[in-house]
Amino acid sequence: MKTYTLPKQSDWLALTERPALNQAGLESTVNSILELVKSKKDKAIFDLTEKFDKVKLDAIKVPEEQIKDAIKTIPNELQTAIQLAKKNITTFHKAQLEADSKVIETTTGVKCWRKSVGIEKVGLYIPGGTAPLFSTILMLGIPAKIANCKDIILCTPCDKNGTINPAILYTANLVGITAIYKVGGAQAIAAMAYGTETIPQVYKIFGPGNQFVTKAKELVQQNGTAIDMPAGPSEILIIADKTGVPEFIAADLLSQAEHGADSQVILLSDSQSTIDAVKVELDNQIKLLPRKETALSALNNSRLILLDSISDCIDFSNLYAPEHLIIASENAENYTSNIINAGSVFLGNYSCESAGDYASGTNHTLPTNGFAKNYSGVSVDSFVKKITFQNLTQKGIRTIGRSIEIMAEAEGFFAHKNAVTLRLKSINNG
Amino acid sequence: MKTYTLPKQSDWLALTERPALNQAGLESTVNSILELVKSKKDKAIFDLTEKFDKVKLDAIKVPEEQIKDAIKTIPNELQTAIQLAKKNITTFHKAQLEADSKVIETTTGVKCWRKSVGIEKVGLYIPGGTAPLFSTILMLGIPAKIANCKDIILCTPCDKNGTINPAILYTANLVGITAIYKVGGAQAIAAMAYGTETIPQVYKIFGPGNQFVTKAKELVQQNGTAIDMPAGPSEILIIADKTGVPEFIAADLLSQAEHGADSQVILLSDSQSTIDAVKVELDNQIKLLPRKETALSALNNSRLILLDSISDCIDFSNLYAPEHLIIASENAENYTSNIINAGSVFLGNYSCESAGDYASGTNHTLPTNGFAKNYSGVSVDSFVKKITFQNLTQKGIRTIGRSIEIMAEAEGFFAHKNAVTLRLKSINNG
Repeated sequence: MKTYTLPKQSDWLALTERPALNQAGLESTVNSILELVKSKKDKAIFDLTEKFDKVKLDAIKVPEEQIKDAIKTIPNELQTAIQLAKKNITTFHKAQLEADSKVIETTTGVKCWRKSVGIEKVGLYIPGGTAPLFSTILMLGIPAKIANCKDIILCTPCDKNGTINPAILYTANLVGITAIYKVGGAQAIAAMAYGTETIPQVYKIFGPGNQFVTKAKELVQQNGTAIDMPAGPSEILIIADKTGVPEFIAADLLSQAEHGADSQVILLSDSQSTIDAVKVELDNQIKLLPRKETALSALNNSRLILLDSISDCIDFSNLYAPEHLIIASENAENYTSNIINAGSVFLGNYSCESAGDYASGTNHTLPTNGFAKNYSGVSVDSFVKKITFQNLTQKGIRTIGRSIEIMAEAEGFFAHKNAVTLRLKSINNG
Repeated sequence: MKTYTLPKQSDWLALTERPALNQAGLESTVNSILELVKSKKDKAIFDLTEKFDKVKLDAIKVPEEQIKDAIKTIPNELQTAIQLAKKNITTFHKAQLEADSKVIETTTGVKCWRKSVGIEKVGLYIPGGTAPLFSTILMLGIPAKIANCKDIILCTPCDKNGTINPAILYTANLVGITAIYKVGGAQAIAAMAYGTETIPQVYKIFGPGNQFVTKAKELVQQNGTAIDMPAGPSEILIIADKTGVPEFIAADLLSQAEHGADSQVILLSDSQSTIDAVKVELDNQIKLLPRKETALSALNNSRLILLDSISDCIDFSNLYAPEHLIIASENAENYTSNIINAGSVFLGNYSCESAGDYASGTNHTLPTNGFAKNYSGVSVDSFVKKITFQNLTQKGIRTIGRSIEIMAEAEGFFAHKNAVTLRLKSINNG
């Protein structure tokens, strides 16, 4: 992990750079998978699953029976933990659902309002691999239910025996996923975007994934399927003053570093002694981690930076636009007003990222790779469309009608003007 | 305009089809423009403007002096109309800005909240051509200001004399656009996405445009620039019962049809006599339009459909997912509860689309081409990011800490678990 001491402001931009990914050939590989699923549908899913996941599936859809069996195998302690997380996530996200919004009378007789309507069909993708990310099912499934989406399907790859981790099945069932399909990778994204005989087409796709999944989401977005947000490797930036606890800071940096070799972690501080103490803690703690090798690779992309003041740290952080931002300070609340670009912010020494990752109630699907400059994390908003309504009375159109006629004419739209003129005439004659 | 009488439900999907666009070669043409602007910056803008717009620019940025001069040329009547529209649009959109959202205590000691922060740099695109779309500047500039975006730039092509329509300059100045640049087409989108010596890079691009502009927005989105929404030709669907006024219905259909030859207009009704009367009105009214040829072409893509009931009409409309939906009925409010997919809805005989296009207060930048299934129209939401915050006390982490440890371990993330364990230990020892 490289240390930088009081870098010049003109060098900051270079220090916000993310590790570059090699994407050569990715688009054409993914495009060919998309085309295959589009044309061969279920047959392509069976074939690609055999090719990439090394398993010959009997059926793509997970039967009810398998879900029921899986539930029985989940230890009580884990069930209770997942239920506590569900309760907090539900509480936080329910507050995001707007009641039908207030009717605004912009002018007498001109009433306008918005209504939030759940997107009818949504698809969630949960990656396979070593870590069964059941927590992401909570983060996507709960707001989808609150938004009142009708069909909430889930695709996730199975292992070589054709089975899906029981914690995934348990959580999917708990939050009310409507159907679960054993399919992973770009082929899962294609199936949800275009539909197959078994897997229904959806209007919006959510969830994390590897480079193939991410590219597939980008490409189907161009054909009209909405996606949650662009994706990149996970990252954290911690701003610590001398009241931050080095032991906790090191643990939080490592909890991000263990995500993947391409993760990035950054510590900013106005205190040299804090930076030094964090370094010592990092060395001590990393030795004990099962995912030590991954964390070590991630630390290679990572930076400890001494800056002049906490105000400079906030400015640097806004330039970096971190997915996760921890303010490790007893006075964290004092520093929040200038935060412009960040996905989720954790204040004080006891707000670890793990809390938001699992159970505090906030969403953990957040903009990475600097996208916090222009994207929000997932929320109930992500699962609804807001439809505007308006109702004009005769008095309403009489009040604003002349202005509409003038503007429409100035833009050269005479039929637009005429739609008003006819109404005004009819009112005057009536 | 084709008439369909009681089509079978199995034939509905085919009747929701939009006119197909020929996009052959479009992507490579646009990609080469993007690359040119990325590498040659301002020089590319000068060259491409000369090539496509047939004008040798002195400068890309519109000087203050030109804006001041333009304002003087706008008739008072038009100024007043634009100001009335601004007032109503401001009133409706201000109500969308959430105050810093409520702090939710999901568990004792675990406080979570969201904060809406304006996207720092946004770019608006306004097409040139015959119609100076100053109304779109109101629709994009006003919510950008309300959202508190810092830099709000505008790109629009100039005419062969190097001038921009004064109504565009007037409106841009009125809503507080920070800088105006004389550049159009895909090169404008590229300039805002990548930045040039003169035109600053922005984080999100808004606004309508032709196929080149639309494709450019799609492509820069893949490189991290956010865009308002995917675009397609404008469209309207009107549902009329026998209380709808045929004269008004025909006028509203034509006001959409005059937009472009690729626009689509659809009338659904449960009343044969209403359909017949609308046909007569269409024939009468179209003759008088300056943009008659355009409207006639659009009507070729268009449909009058008799259905069994208004309930069937709503179901068909949800399948079509229209940008604009007019319910031409004295009982319009009775039919709204089942509307799922629509951009903006106009209720009753006096709520013409023109009202929402210009001055009622709602936004006219709306999802077309069926995208109302998965996208909302532009609102203040489009110009902010919602950042989540959390603050856990010792009591908070004590209450949810054990659950986090269990879940992190079940997902195989031991450093995530350790970040909690260390805190719990420190509290117990403290």
